[in-house]
Amino acid sequence: MHIGFIGLGNMGSPMAHNLLAAGHQLSVFDLSEVAVEALVVAGAARASSVQAIAATDCELIITMLPAARQVKAVYLGEEGLLANVHPGVRLIDSSTIDPLSAREVAAAAEQQNNPMLDAPVSGGTGGAAAGTLTFMVGGSKADFDHALPVLQAMGKNIVHCGPAGNGQVAKVANNMLLAISMIGTVEAMNLGVALGMQPEVLAGVINTSSGRCWSSDTYNPYPGVMENVPAARGYSGGFGTDLMLKDLGLATEAAKHAQQPVLLGALAQQLYQSFSSQGHGALDFSAIIKLYTGDTE
Amino acid sequence: MHIGFIGLGNMGSPMAHNLLAAGHQLSVFDLSEVAVEALVVAGAARASSVQAIAATDCELIITMLPAARQVKAVYLGEEGLLANVHPGVRLIDSSTIDPLSAREVAAAAEQQNNPMLDAPVSGGTGGAAAGTLTFMVGGSKADFDHALPVLQAMGKNIVHCGPAGNGQVAKVANNMLLAISMIGTVEAMNLGVALGMQPEVLAGVINTSSGRCWSSDTYNPYPGVMENVPAARGYSGGFGTDLMLKDLGLATEAAKHAQQPVLLGALAQQLYQSFSSQGHGALDFSAIIKLYTGDTE
Amino acid sequence: MHIGFIGLGNMGSPMAHNLLAAGHQLSVFDLSEVAVEALVVAGAARASSVQAIAATDCELIITMLPAARQVKAVYLGEEGLLANVHPGVRLIDSSTIDPLSAREVAAAAEQQNNPMLDAPVSGGTGGAAAGTLTFMVGGSKADFDHALPVLQAMGKNIVHCGPAGNGQVAKVANNMLLAISMIGTVEAMNLGVALGMQPEVLAGVINTSSGRCWSSDTYNPYPGVMENVPAARGYSGGFGTDLMLKDLGLATEAAKHAQQPVLLGALAQQLYQSFSSQGHGALDFSAIIKLYTGDTE
Amino acid sequence: MHIGFIGLGNMGSPMAHNLLAAGHQLSVFDLSEVAVEALVVAGAARASSVQAIAATDCELIITMLPAARQVKAVYLGEEGLLANVHPGVRLIDSSTIDPLSAREVAAAAEQQNNPMLDAPVSGGTGGAAAGTLTFMVGGSKADFDHALPVLQAMGKNIVHCGPAGNGQVAKVANNMLLAISMIGTVEAMNLGVALGMQPEVLAGVINTSSGRCWSSDTYNPYPGVMENVPAARGYSGGFGTDLMLKDLGLATEAAKHAQQPVLLGALAQQLYQSFSSQGHGALDFSAIIKLYTGDTE
Repeated sequence: MHIGFIGLGNMGSPMAHNLLAAGHQLSVFDLSEVAVEALVVAGAARASSVQAIAATDCELIITMLPAARQVKAVYLGEEGLLANVHPGVRLIDSSTIDPLSAREVAAAAEQQNNPMLDAPVSGGTGGAAAGTLTFMVGGSKADFDHALPVLQAMGKNIVHCGPAGNGQVAKVANNMLLAISMIGTVEAMNLGVALGMQPEVLAGVINTSSGRCWSSDTYNPYPGVMENVPAARGYSGGFGTDLMLKDLGLATEAAKHAQQPVLLGALAQQLYQSFSSQGHGALDFSAIIKLYTGDTE
Repeated sequence: MHIGFIGLGNMGSPMAHNLLAAGHQLSVFDLSEVAVEALVVAGAARASSVQAIAATDCELIITMLPAARQVKAVYLGEEGLLANVHPGVRLIDSSTIDPLSAREVAAAAEQQNNPMLDAPVSGGTGGAAAGTLTFMVGGSKADFDHALPVLQAMGKNIVHCGPAGNGQVAKVANNMLLAISMIGTVEAMNLGVALGMQPEVLAGVINTSSGRCWSSDTYNPYPGVMENVPAARGYSGGFGTDLMLKDLGLATEAAKHAQQPVLLGALAQQLYQSFSSQGHGALDFSAIIKLYTGDTE
Repeated sequence: MHIGFIGLGNMGSPMAHNLLAAGHQLSVFDLSEVAVEALVVAGAARASSVQAIAATDCELIITMLPAARQVKAVYLGEEGLLANVHPGVRLIDSSTIDPLSAREVAAAAEQQNNPMLDAPVSGGTGGAAAGTLTFMVGGSKADFDHALPVLQAMGKNIVHCGPAGNGQVAKVANNMLLAISMIGTVEAMNLGVALGMQPEVLAGVINTSSGRCWSSDTYNPYPGVMENVPAARGYSGGFGTDLMLKDLGLATEAAKHAQQPVLLGALAQQLYQSFSSQGHGALDFSAIIKLYTGDTE
Repeated sequence: MHIGFIGLGNMGSPMAHNLLAAGHQLSVFDLSEVAVEALVVAGAARASSVQAIAATDCELIITMLPAARQVKAVYLGEEGLLANVHPGVRLIDSSTIDPLSAREVAAAAEQQNNPMLDAPVSGGTGGAAAGTLTFMVGGSKADFDHALPVLQAMGKNIVHCGPAGNGQVAKVANNMLLAISMIGTVEAMNLGVALGMQPEVLAGVINTSSGRCWSSDTYNPYPGVMENVPAARGYSGGFGTDLMLKDLGLATEAAKHAQQPVLLGALAQQLYQSFSSQGHGALDFSAIIKLYTGDTE
């Protein structure tokens, strides 16, 4: 399939490479010439603008952008996709943005007969490179089924979450819970160790009991408990604190619009804000343990 | 083995029954004559007091009491166990109390040559009846090994957590994390559903993603998502709100002594206090979802 | 002075009446014909649109609108003020909106030589009627001085807070602290009374000690402590819960943009959200005490 | 009057000096010989033990001790006051302890006909030296009236709070509100300044508006806003972080016993715990602003 791809950042570039590797024909655009060049070397065609992507004969366009502001510009701007794309071309936005903006863009696309999916991912740059991302997808079931083979070239867990915007809803809900359980794991581990437990023994108890969670059994934040996690390498790599902070901002904003109280979610956001404000925004989000130990390295 | 058993409440009674069923000889005491009578019918010998238990030729005495006040009275009082028990008799306290009190009692027992373990449980009255409790055990490895066969008659997951008091530490740390992740699950489920997700779809996404936790995949608080959980039966049965509130009180008190901040833990305690103060203390702890929906039934 | 006035709601109407009473000539516009009619009866001239206000020979236009969306529409829309107003006409927006939007609008106005002030108020409908509002004003000192006599016809405490947007900053900062200290007063009063204090005695101690705050000494939320406050009349009147919730939303959003943690502020927002979601959004904000007592009337 | 005084620490010593200065005869005891010697030089009689104080012909004994553990030991121990004091001697405990312990000790004293008051203070070491402390007094009105002249030698604001224990209740309730409003002031000041306000202008607005509180208008934590406050001298002197942390521990413990939720109070405790754990326990409690700025000096 001929696919247009806009947004070749840390996530978009490896995703595009996996599409090429799966045999798809790709036309790519990004403001960064370096990012474009790397894809061109790998076999993609260069496009000079969003409009140029729209002008190709691609059947599908995928976007991977930093925030709602860029998504709205790329889709709704005068020189954007919707104003220039051929009727019937399918659209997938894999950016993580607020559900309301996702629904606004999808409604505009549907109105002019361009089927659209919101398909934010989890799994980080590692998952993007390995093609093992999780895609949380909002849109019609028929559009989902149509997109499934393409998404499977980039991920291994592709979930249909319901109508437009629901991919974003699933992501912000999941990540809010992730932030809460990560901080909860930090507090439980710190408390137990301060009271005399060996950290790996405590993690073992929790992971076979009712406190078990992904943050404790797969991504434990306490140094020395697990290998191959950010805590084992100084909290480098992984899912950055500032990305988690962004997602918590989306979650509490969505909660405000939905008039739903999220007490622990809001407190988690503030704790990540505190940690980021102290200069640690680039560390993996499990490094929030440093906020508790006062470790300022 | 001849075992003394003190404390035949909702948890102690089924535990004692399981010991009888495993072929042990039992002498039992409780302030409730009804509770004692039920065990006597099942084959236990009646004792009229704590002192009377101490006066038997039992090799091991197990206690299951409501709180530290009763534990201290039973072990340290003038008419209590330590003042009256034969040298060398082994002691196991399965009550859930604060680690400091557990260590104080254990130290007093060790001093007069009565090996002691703290062995609080999780698994609720259902696990106590089925003999599938988890025991978190503090004390020496030798004492743990010695007690293992007896504990296996009452539970299936018996974990050695380190020296005296560490059973209690493991329990309060685990349960604090449990409370946090339960409330986090409530907030994430409510938020996602308010934004248009089907609850079972959202739970499916979370349970295969990084938000996964015991509260979401084994004990989901949202009605209709799972069968055979309290949410499926009006939040009856299970692990009561007031028991969770008690454990959170132990956790934050232990954190105060250990000078460890537990921000989400403290907030979780206050939310359970709010819910209990509104008259819901007897409901399962997953009913905290009602605090968010304002459902007052 | 001939003044244009746009936005004749619960606040705007009495403010406009006070301008008339002070001898100013008024042209007014609102979508509600009823609101306009009441001002016309009192001596104002009717305008049929925002453009019609801009077309008059007024020297100054004051706006009092519900939220940033309306402010942006009225000022920046194609049929809005900036596109139609005469050069040099002064502009005052008394709406409460986020500082960033206020600065965006002010910058657009300055660019076309219309001096603009942001001047949100506190004091409620009572203060608006009595002409005793507090105005927190952002903009140049010269513009502030020029506007002072007009503002004094509507308020008695007129404070220059610095350049454009600072009126909004002062308001959200003040109101966030107000929400926190109100909830703190609720918690302290409830705790003391539960432990055996007479509420009026406790309030007396606090009001002469370091816990003293406006919420305790001027607007005490505990029934029976003060007369002439919402707590003395079933929490009717005053400053509504949903208005406080809106201001807390502005505060935490501004904090997100400024990358400043506001832990108590965010928790206060969530508590007001909980209270509003339970159906109490129209009660005075001191009624948050009901969230603690579980009083659902 | 001949008065016995037990506990000559940072608070007790200046209080005892003020009693001497007011013409009272004093017998004093403390474990610190240095502290005793300083009072003896000033005219007090030395006593060698609690029992020795009880053996004098004093009409009144005042105690000023660190925590409930010491209070219980001094009053209820075998070599303590109640076991040795003459009938009718009046007792005043000025320590800050939990209300339940205060009531337990007072009940024991009343039972043997020694009228007792709990009379914790606020005002710090400065107020103790200047004789300007606030006394919050629990006990009968008759006993309060009898003690008033003596207390007036040490303080200027002497408040009767109701029956035994209510002095402690008033203090923990007031100080919990103080901690909340101090942190609220920190968040509001930081937010406003980050958004472009001059700190002294923002403080001026707040102090004439509804956010006004003792923490903003008398003890502002933002450097440069006020003179003669800890913020003006590197947060030295004043009311120490660890003392505030102790009082918050008493407040949340009392709330637990009273089954009253204190969400902001509990979060304030955890924030002070975080700050203390980072090594700042000796700084004035307004230094909590450093937790937000990340200033680690």
